[in-house]
Amino acid sequence: MKLSEIPTPALVVDAAAMQRNIDRMAAYFAGRACKLRPHFKAHKTPEIARRQLLAGQCTGLTCATVGEAEVVVAEGIETEILIANEVVGPGKAARVAALARRSRIVVAVDSEYGAADLAEAARAAAVEIGVVVDVNVGMPRCGIAPGEDAVALAGRVAETPGLLLRGMMGYEGHVVGIADRADRAPRAEKTMERLLSTVELARGRGLPVDIVSAGGTGTYDITGALEGITEVQAGSYVLMDTAYARLDLPFEQALSVLATVLSRPRPEQCAADAGLKACAVDHGNPEVKGVPGASVLFLSDEHATIALPGECVLAPGDRIELWPSHIDPTINLHDVLYAIDGDEVVATWPVAARGYIEQRGR
Amino acid sequence: MKLSEIPTPALVVDAAAMQRNIDRMAAYFAGRACKLRPHFKAHKTPEIARRQLLAGQCTGLTCATVGEAEVVVAEGIETEILIANEVVGPGKAARVAALARRSRIVVAVDSEYGAADLAEAARAAAVEIGVVVDVNVGMPRCGIAPGEDAVALAGRVAETPGLLLRGMMGYEGHVVGIADRADRAPRAEKTMERLLSTVELARGRGLPVDIVSAGGTGTYDITGALEGITEVQAGSYVLMDTAYARLDLPFEQALSVLATVLSRPRPEQCAADAGLKACAVDHGNPEVKGVPGASVLFLSDEHATIALPGECVLAPGDRIELWPSHIDPTINLHDVLYAIDGDEVVATWPVAARGYIEQRGR
Repeated sequence: MKLSEIPTPALVVDAAAMQRNIDRMAAYFAGRACKLRPHFKAHKTPEIARRQLLAGQCTGLTCATVGEAEVVVAEGIETEILIANEVVGPGKAARVAALARRSRIVVAVDSEYGAADLAEAARAAAVEIGVVVDVNVGMPRCGIAPGEDAVALAGRVAETPGLLLRGMMGYEGHVVGIADRADRAPRAEKTMERLLSTVELARGRGLPVDIVSAGGTGTYDITGALEGITEVQAGSYVLMDTAYARLDLPFEQALSVLATVLSRPRPEQCAADAGLKACAVDHGNPEVKGVPGASVLFLSDEHATIALPGECVLAPGDRIELWPSHIDPTINLHDVLYAIDGDEVVATWPVAARGYIEQRGR
Repeated sequence: MKLSEIPTPALVVDAAAMQRNIDRMAAYFAGRACKLRPHFKAHKTPEIARRQLLAGQCTGLTCATVGEAEVVVAEGIETEILIANEVVGPGKAARVAALARRSRIVVAVDSEYGAADLAEAARAAAVEIGVVVDVNVGMPRCGIAPGEDAVALAGRVAETPGLLLRGMMGYEGHVVGIADRADRAPRAEKTMERLLSTVELARGRGLPVDIVSAGGTGTYDITGALEGITEVQAGSYVLMDTAYARLDLPFEQALSVLATVLSRPRPEQCAADAGLKACAVDHGNPEVKGVPGASVLFLSDEHATIALPGECVLAPGDRIELWPSHIDPTINLHDVLYAIDGDEVVATWPVAARGYIEQRGR
C-alpha cells in the first residue's frame, strides 16, 4: 500500500524517525543506574511498546489505566507493568488482581481507601499486588503529601496482607513542558527533592523502597540524572508533538495526521478532512507540515480550516499532513497507525488499547 | 445493572430527557413545510437515530462521513442519507457508489473536482448519486460562493451522467452558537438569504432544487421558519451540551460523563478519572453536575482536576458527573452509551460509527 492510498483522516508514523527516537532514549540510559519505563498511554500500541522494550534499558512499561495493562498482558508482552495512577471504582481492583495472576503488576496508591480496595481484591484472588505510594511533588492532581503523610501510608501498605510495598513515585507534570531548560531543570530538581527526601525518610523507617519512579519526556535527562531516581516514565519522546518540539529535546516528530483537501473555496483558505475527531486540540491547533505560510485557523468535527498563502497550489484531492500538538489524545482517536517508509506503508499497527476496553462487547 | 456498577469513565444518557428533546423537536416541525434531517455525527449511535426517525417529521438522516453512512445502511436503517460534506480522497467516491446501490444517498459537492470524482464512481458502479451543491453562506470552511458560481456548478452537476441534482445546502455554523437570540436570528436570516437567493437563481435557470438544507440546533426555529428551507440538519439538540445550554433552547442536557473520584489530596481539590480521553475540551472544560461550587480546573489524559469547596464531602470512590462542552467529539471517544432511568441502566447503546470505520480490521 502506498501513502497516497491511505483513506483519510489517518495517523502516519515515520517508522525510521520513531526508531531513532527509541534508540536515542535507550542510549541515554545505557550505563546509568536509572532506567526507562516507557509510558504506554502515549500510543496504546503494542507494536511500539515491543520496539521500546527491545531497545533495552527498560524496567518495564508504564500504563495509565487497567485497560491498557490488560491489553499489554493479552498481547503477551512479558514485562513488569506499573499502573502509574490510582485504581479506584467498581471492578477495577478485581481486574488488577486478575492481572497479577498472569503478570508482574505494580499500582500507584495515594489513599487508605485505594490501598484497602486493592488489598481486598488481592486477598480475594489470593495474589499479592505491588504498590508504589504516589507522592504529590507539586502538580495539583493525585498524590499524597510528601514527608510524614506519604511515609505513614507506605508503612500501612507494607503491613497490609495482599499488598507488597515496592516503592514510591511522583510525577512533575507541571514542569515537564517548560520550554527553557534553564528554567525547567532547577524546577524539576526542586520538585524531585520532595520525592527523594520522602524516600529517604521511608527507608530510615525500615520500609523497602526499591522503585523510585518519576519524570517525563521533558525531564528524562534532568530527573533521570538525579541520584536515587530508579526509572523515568517518559512516553511522548517516541513520536513527539508540537508541544514537546518547542523544548530542546533530541527527539524527532514522527507522527502526523494525514488529510485530504476537500475544498479550496478561496485562494486564502482550504478545508481538509481532519477535524476534532481526528486530532486533539487540548494543547493547541495542529501545525501544517511542509507548506510554507500555511496555518490551521480552527478545527471542527470533520474539518481543518487552513489559512494558505495565495500562491499555494493546494487543491481538492491533494494531501496534507498536520503535526498534532498532543499525541496521546490524538492517537486515542484512531484504530490504527500506518507505519511508513517514504511513500510505502510498511505496516499497520492496531492502537489496541484505544478507548476504554471494558466498554467493548457491551 | 445499576448506575453505580458502570465502570468509569463512561457516558450516561438520561433516556427520558433525550426522548423529551426528540419529541420537542418533532413537535416544532409538525405541520410545517420544513422538516428535520437529524445529524447522525452528533452521536454516531444507531439506537438514537432510530428514535429520532420514529418521532417523525424527518426527511432522512444527515451524516458527516462516508463511514457514518455505511454504518446507518449496515444497521438496516431505511431512510435517505445526506452526506452533508464533500467526499474527496482515495476510495471515498466508490464507497458512496456502493451505498447508492443499497440506499438513497445524497452528497454535498462544492467543486468540479468533487463532482467529477463522484460521477466517475457512479458510472463505474452503474448507479446514480444524488447531489446537493454546498453553498458557502459565510462560514470559512467548505462551500462554493453563492450566486452565479454555485448555480454554474449546479448546472454542470445536472448535466453530468451518474449524478442527479437534488438541491442545495448551506451551513451557517458561524452563527448557530451565538448566545443571544436577538443577535443570532437576524444574522442567521442574513446568511440564509445567500442560500435562498442562490436557490431562486438556479430555479430561474430551470434547475431542479428540491432539497434546500441548512441549519443546526441553534437555528432550528430561525432557519427552519424561513420560507424555502426544506429541512434543518440539527444534531446536538438530542443530548445537548454546555455550549448549547447557554442558548435559549427548549432542550435538556441529557448526556454526562460519569467519573469516579480517585483522590482528594487537599480539601480544595479532587481528581476524578475522566480526562481528555473521555471528554472533549475544544469548547471548554466540562462542568461538574450537581456539586455546588465545584469547577473543573483542567483535564489531563486520564484525570479531571476539580476545585471543590472545602465543605464538600467528595472522597475517593465517590461518583461525579461532568457535563461536556461539546457532545460530538466527546461521544466519539466512547464505544457505548449507557442509557439510564434514575439509577437503573436500561440499555447499552453501541456508538457504532465511532472513529473511522475504514480503519477497523486493518
